[in-house]
Amino acid sequence: MKALVYQGPGSKSLMEVPKPGLRDATDAIVRITKTTICGTDLHILKGDVPSVTEGRVLGHEGIGVIEQIGSSVTRYHVGDRVIISCITACGKCDFCRRGMCSHCEHGGWILGNTIDGTQAEHVRIPWADTSLHAIPEDANEEAMVMLSDILPTGYECGVLNGCVKPGDTVAIIGAGPIGLAALLTARFYAPADIIMIDRDESRLDIAKKLGATMLINTSDGRVAEKAMSMTLGRGVDVAIEAVGAPETFELCQSIIAAGGHIANVGVHGESAPLHLETLWSRNIIITTRLVDAVTTPLLLKTVIAGKLEPKQLITHRFALHEVMAAYDTFGNAAREHALKVILSCA
Amino acid sequence: MKALVYQGPGSKSLMEVPKPGLRDATDAIVRITKTTICGTDLHILKGDVPSVTEGRVLGHEGIGVIEQIGSSVTRYHVGDRVIISCITACGKCDFCRRGMCSHCEHGGWILGNTIDGTQAEHVRIPWADTSLHAIPEDANEEAMVMLSDILPTGYECGVLNGCVKPGDTVAIIGAGPIGLAALLTARFYAPADIIMIDRDESRLDIAKKLGATMLINTSDGRVAEKAMSMTLGRGVDVAIEAVGAPETFELCQSIIAAGGHIANVGVHGESAPLHLETLWSRNIIITTRLVDAVTTPLLLKTVIAGKLEPKQLITHRFALHEVMAAYDTFGNAAREHALKVILSCA
Amino acid sequence: MKALVYQGPGSKSLMEVPKPGLRDATDAIVRITKTTICGTDLHILKGDVPSVTEGRVLGHEGIGVIEQIGSSVTRYHVGDRVIISCITACGKCDFCRRGMCSHCEHGGWILGNTIDGTQAEHVRIPWADTSLHAIPEDANEEAMVMLSDILPTGYECGVLNGCVKPGDTVAIIGAGPIGLAALLTARFYAPADIIMIDRDESRLDIAKKLGATMLINTSDGRVAEKAMSMTLGRGVDVAIEAVGAPETFELCQSIIAAGGHIANVGVHGESAPLHLETLWSRNIIITTRLVDAVTTPLLLKTVIAGKLEPKQLITHRFALHEVMAAYDTFGNAAREHALKVILSCA
Amino acid sequence: MKALVYQGPGSKSLMEVPKPGLRDATDAIVRITKTTICGTDLHILKGDVPSVTEGRVLGHEGIGVIEQIGSSVTRYHVGDRVIISCITACGKCDFCRRGMCSHCEHGGWILGNTIDGTQAEHVRIPWADTSLHAIPEDANEEAMVMLSDILPTGYECGVLNGCVKPGDTVAIIGAGPIGLAALLTARFYAPADIIMIDRDESRLDIAKKLGATMLINTSDGRVAEKAMSMTLGRGVDVAIEAVGAPETFELCQSIIAAGGHIANVGVHGESAPLHLETLWSRNIIITTRLVDAVTTPLLLKTVIAGKLEPKQLITHRFALHEVMAAYDTFGNAAREHALKVILSCA
Repeated sequence: MKALVYQGPGSKSLMEVPKPGLRDATDAIVRITKTTICGTDLHILKGDVPSVTEGRVLGHEGIGVIEQIGSSVTRYHVGDRVIISCITACGKCDFCRRGMCSHCEHGGWILGNTIDGTQAEHVRIPWADTSLHAIPEDANEEAMVMLSDILPTGYECGVLNGCVKPGDTVAIIGAGPIGLAALLTARFYAPADIIMIDRDESRLDIAKKLGATMLINTSDGRVAEKAMSMTLGRGVDVAIEAVGAPETFELCQSIIAAGGHIANVGVHGESAPLHLETLWSRNIIITTRLVDAVTTPLLLKTVIAGKLEPKQLITHRFALHEVMAAYDTFGNAAREHALKVILSCA
Repeated sequence: MKALVYQGPGSKSLMEVPKPGLRDATDAIVRITKTTICGTDLHILKGDVPSVTEGRVLGHEGIGVIEQIGSSVTRYHVGDRVIISCITACGKCDFCRRGMCSHCEHGGWILGNTIDGTQAEHVRIPWADTSLHAIPEDANEEAMVMLSDILPTGYECGVLNGCVKPGDTVAIIGAGPIGLAALLTARFYAPADIIMIDRDESRLDIAKKLGATMLINTSDGRVAEKAMSMTLGRGVDVAIEAVGAPETFELCQSIIAAGGHIANVGVHGESAPLHLETLWSRNIIITTRLVDAVTTPLLLKTVIAGKLEPKQLITHRFALHEVMAAYDTFGNAAREHALKVILSCA
Repeated sequence: MKALVYQGPGSKSLMEVPKPGLRDATDAIVRITKTTICGTDLHILKGDVPSVTEGRVLGHEGIGVIEQIGSSVTRYHVGDRVIISCITACGKCDFCRRGMCSHCEHGGWILGNTIDGTQAEHVRIPWADTSLHAIPEDANEEAMVMLSDILPTGYECGVLNGCVKPGDTVAIIGAGPIGLAALLTARFYAPADIIMIDRDESRLDIAKKLGATMLINTSDGRVAEKAMSMTLGRGVDVAIEAVGAPETFELCQSIIAAGGHIANVGVHGESAPLHLETLWSRNIIITTRLVDAVTTPLLLKTVIAGKLEPKQLITHRFALHEVMAAYDTFGNAAREHALKVILSCA
Repeated sequence: MKALVYQGPGSKSLMEVPKPGLRDATDAIVRITKTTICGTDLHILKGDVPSVTEGRVLGHEGIGVIEQIGSSVTRYHVGDRVIISCITACGKCDFCRRGMCSHCEHGGWILGNTIDGTQAEHVRIPWADTSLHAIPEDANEEAMVMLSDILPTGYECGVLNGCVKPGDTVAIIGAGPIGLAALLTARFYAPADIIMIDRDESRLDIAKKLGATMLINTSDGRVAEKAMSMTLGRGVDVAIEAVGAPETFELCQSIIAAGGHIANVGVHGESAPLHLETLWSRNIIITTRLVDAVTTPLLLKTVIAGKLEPKQLITHRFALHEVMAAYDTFGNAAREHALKVILSCA
C-alpha cells in the first residue's frame, strides 16, 4: 500500500510499504478514507521527537472503514465506519480506568510515533474497542476527522482544564488549528469575551469569524498591556496557551486575573520561568495535559446536534497521493492561509 | 499600650503606643490575650515586604476579648472571646462573595502589614463581623491561636488545593510550622503515605510524631531519587511546597506523578523554572494561593471534635513583654527547636 | 406612596401607604422604576403562604434608583441604578458565607413575604450592600428585571443543579416563565437537545423559538413514552421540574437516564412518591433548591455580552397604577399568552 | 465441584455441580479460597430478585487464585491471587468508560444473579482484566474479601455520594455490615460526629467501637427528635440510608440540615414519600447508586496502609462445606451477633 514514511530528520517519502495485518486479538485493520496532518508531524520531521524512528509511517488522525478485526474485538465489525482516536487506550490499565488514557500503559500516543500511523491506505489499530468511535449514519466525514485529535485536544487541555464558564473572559494565545479548536469549544460555555492573540492577521480574521470578540496582533507589541486594558485592568479569567513557547507562557502569567486558570495546550521544548514572586499569592491554577480523548463521544454528540461545526477548521483538500504537496501547504501555513488539510483516499 | 513596632529593616522595638480606637462602624477593638509570630514577620523584619512601613505594629495572628464594637457590628458583642483571622474580609466585594477573601477589595492581609497588628495589647479589627470567629466555651486557647493563619494556610493552600485523597502518597517539602500544619490537615483524608522532606533532623522527628510515614533529609542529597524510589518510580500524587525557593519548587516537579497536583504554599521572592519540556504532557495541576481563611469554621469544628490537635505545633511560650526574646527563639528555629511560640498577655 | 397590598386570601388592593424610611444602618431605600409579578405572588394571594400577613406590600423583584442609604452602606450611593435581588443576604452569617444566601439567618426570601416588597413606588432593602447589584450604563432595563429572580432561579435550581453539559439531552417540565428561564440558561452549555414539556401549545411554541429542539404536549398523553422514544429508550440526562406537582415530579423519575440528574425548581405543596424500588440502583441525583441568587453577577455578564436575552420572557407591559389589570393578565397566563409582565413607575 | 445452588424461593442446597470452564477469551476461572454472604443473598432466597432463576450458584464476593485465563486476558496470570469484584465490567462500553460500571452493558451485577457465583469451589469471571484486582503479597486475606462489595458499596454509595467532609455531622441509619462499612470509610474524612442509628443494641455497641460518636436506638422512639437535639436543632450534614425501607428514608428527610446530602445505600422494594412540601426550599441533594466498584484500588491502598481495617466487620468463620450453617448464622444476625461471615475453601 501507499504510505508516507519518515526517513530521518528533514526527510519523508510517499512510498509502497506492506499492508498491515492483525497482530493481536484486540487489533483492527482500518482502511483509511480521510486523514490529515498535525503540527506534531512537522515537529517529527524536524527530528524533535526522538521516539519516532526511520521507516515509521506518519499520522495519528483519520477516519476509515474496518476491514479486519481481531478475535476479541466486540464493539466493531468489518464494514463499520470509524473515527481513529489519536490516543490508543487499552481500557484496562489504572490510567485508562481513571480516564487518563494519554498515559495508558499499553497505548497513549503511539500512532505515527512508536507504531505505524494513518497517513497511509491502511492502518493497524491496537485495542480497537477502546480506541475507535463509530461514525453515525449522516455525519459529515470531514468533520469526523477533526474528532481524532484537534477538537478533543482544544477542548480537554484548553477549555475543560481552563474551567471556562458563562460570563468569563478567555484569552487564547495562538490562532492555529488547536487554538481555534479551543475557541470553538470554549463557546460551549457562553463566555462573555474571547480574546484571540496571534501574529498572523489572517488567522485573527478567521478567529473573528469563529466567534472571537477581541483580537490582538502580537506583532504590534504591548500585548499584555492591551489585554489588561481590554479587561479594565482585571486580567482574564482563563488563559489558554496554544503555541508552546516560553514567551507565550509568560504572557499568560502577565494577563491572568487573580483566581484565574492558565491551561497549557502547547508542546514545549524548553522550560519557562514561572513568576512565583508575584503569582504565589494570586490564587492561580496552571494545568498541563496530553489529550486523553475521553470527551470524543461528548464532542461527537455536539457535532451531530449542530452545536459545533468543525469543518470551519478545514482550508485545503488533497488526495493521499498528493501528501507531499499537502505537507508543503500545511508547512507554510501563514503563506498558504492553511489550517487543517484533508487527505482523501479514493 | 505595649506593642511591637517595626522600625525599618533589621529593627523592631517593644514600645508604648496609643491604644487603638474605633474608626468605622464595622470595627471591633480586641484586647489580645494570646498572639504568635509568623515566618512572614521575619521577612518583614528583613525589609522584604515593602508595604510594611516604619512605625507599624506587627502581627496578624491571635485571640482575644472584644472590648468595643462599632455600631454596625452584629455578630459579636463586648466580652466575646474571638479568633482574629489573618485575613480581613469585608464580606461584600466580589472576591469575598466568591470565597476569595485573600483578595478582598477592602481587606485581605492587612493586619501587621498596612494597618497595625496583633503583637500588642489591643488591636483594631476592621469588618469585625466577617474577620473574627467566636471561640467555643471549652476550647483550648493556645489551639485557637493556630486557627488565625497557620492551619487554614496549610489546609487551603496545601491540602485542599492539592486535592489529597484516601490512599494518596503526599510529599511535603518543608517541615516548618506551615509544612507541619499541612501534614496535620492532610491526615484528614487518610492518605496512604506522607513523605516529609526537610534539612533539619529534629523537625523531621517531629513530623514523624505528627504522622509522616517517610522522611527525607535534604542534606543527604539525592532527594528526588529517594522520593522516586519510595514511590516505586511512580512519583507522588500530591507535592506541597512549603519553603518558598526555586530549588524546592523544582523538586516538586521532579517527583510528581503523572496526573498529580503541585500545591504551592511557600512565599517566593523570585521566579522558578517550570519544566514544561517534560511537564506539558504529564497532566499536572499547579496551584498557588494566599490563604482565604474561609475554612476556619470547618477547622474549628475539627479541633473541637478532637480530630485535629494544633497544640502539637507549639514549642515555646512567652509573655508579651518578652516578645524580643520570643523573636530570638523563633528566628533561630533550628537551634532552638522552635515551631510556633505563644505570646500571652496577662 | 402607591403600593399593592395583600388583604388576606383572595384579596389585594392598590392603595396609598406610608413611604418606607431607613431603619438599619445597612438599609437602602430604592425608588422602584420597574417591577414584575411572580407565580409565587399568585400562591400568596390564594392564601398558600402563611408567612405573608394582611397589610403586606407584595413583590420581590424589580429595579430602581437608590434614594437613601444607611450609614454603613458602602457599595452603593444615592442615585445608583440597581437590581433588587429576590434574596436578601446579610453577607455575614454562616449560610451567606457558604454561598447559600437563601437560608441567610437575617434575610433569605423576605421581600413581599415578611417585610414589604417591590410592587410599590418605594421599597426598603435591608443589607443593601449584599442584596443589590449595580446596573451597567447601557443595560436594557427590562432585561435587568429578569435578574431579580427568574433567571437565577432557572439557572441555579435547574441548570447548575442539573449539571447540564455539552451534548446532553435535557427535559424541562413546565414552559412557564421559570421553565423558559431554565431553557435560556441551559443553552449556555450547548446541550444536544432540549425537550420542553407543557400542556399549553402556545407556550411550547415560545419554547421552540427560544431554542427547545423537541416538544411534548402533555394533554396528548403518553408523555413518558414519548420522551423515552425521543431518547431511543435511554432517557434524559437532566430532567428539570418547573411545575411543582407530584405528577410532574414522577414524570421526571420515569424519563431519567441511569446516572442522570433531576433538578427540582417547582414549589411543591405536598409530598411526591419517590420510586426507590427502581431508582435505588439507577445512580440518580435529585436536587432541591431555593435560589441563592449568587449567580446574578455571572448572569449579568452574560446579558451584557449578549449571550442571554431575557427580554424574550416579557409579554406584557403595564404602569404600576394598572397593577390590578396586570395581575388579571398574569393570572390568566394561558388565555392571555402571558409570561412575564413589566410594571413601570413613571 | 461443591456449590451453593438456589432452588427457588426459600430453598437452597449445597451440591455437586460441574466445574465451570472458559467460555470467552476474556474469561478467567478462579479457584475460590474465601467467600462470604451478602444481605442480597437473603433477598434472593426470599424470591425477591426475579432475575435469579433456579439452579443458579449464589454469591458475588470472594477471593481466590486464578486457574485458567482466556486468550485475551493480559493483566492476570495463572496462579495470581485476586479479589473478585461484585461488579463485572467490560471496560469498553460507554458506562464503563464513564466509571459507571454498575450499568455495564455486558456486566454489572451478574455474579450469583444471571451467571453462576462465588459460593462454590470455582467460578468463571467474565471480563477478567477489568473485574479482578491483584492481591498484594502481604495482604490479609479476610480483609481482601471485604473489598469485593461491602467496602466499595459503603464508600461509593454512602460516603462519596454523601460528600462527607472534615467537621461534618454524619448520620448512618442501619448498623448492619453496609452501614458499618460506611462508618469505617466515612472516617477517612475526619467528620466531627457520626451518629449511628439502629434498633439492635449490640450492633450499636460495635458501631461505637468502630468510631461512632453518638448512638440512637430506634426502638426507644423519637429518633428524629433525638438526632435534632444532638445537632442543636440544625440537623445532620449527611444522612446515609443503609436499611432500604420507606420509614428510614423518611427519617433521613426529617433530620437533614439545609444544604445537606441524603445518600441512599439501601435496597428498596417500594416507593417512599419525598416531602417536597418542605424539602423543595431546603437545598438538599439526594443520591442513589448501585456500587460501581471503581474505588477498589483506592480502598486497597488504604487497607495496605493500615488506614482501614476491614477485618473488624468479620464475626464468624466457616468452611465452605458448612455454608448452610453459615447462612443460618448470617440469616439470624441479631440473635447471633453476626456481621460478615467468612467461608473458606481448603
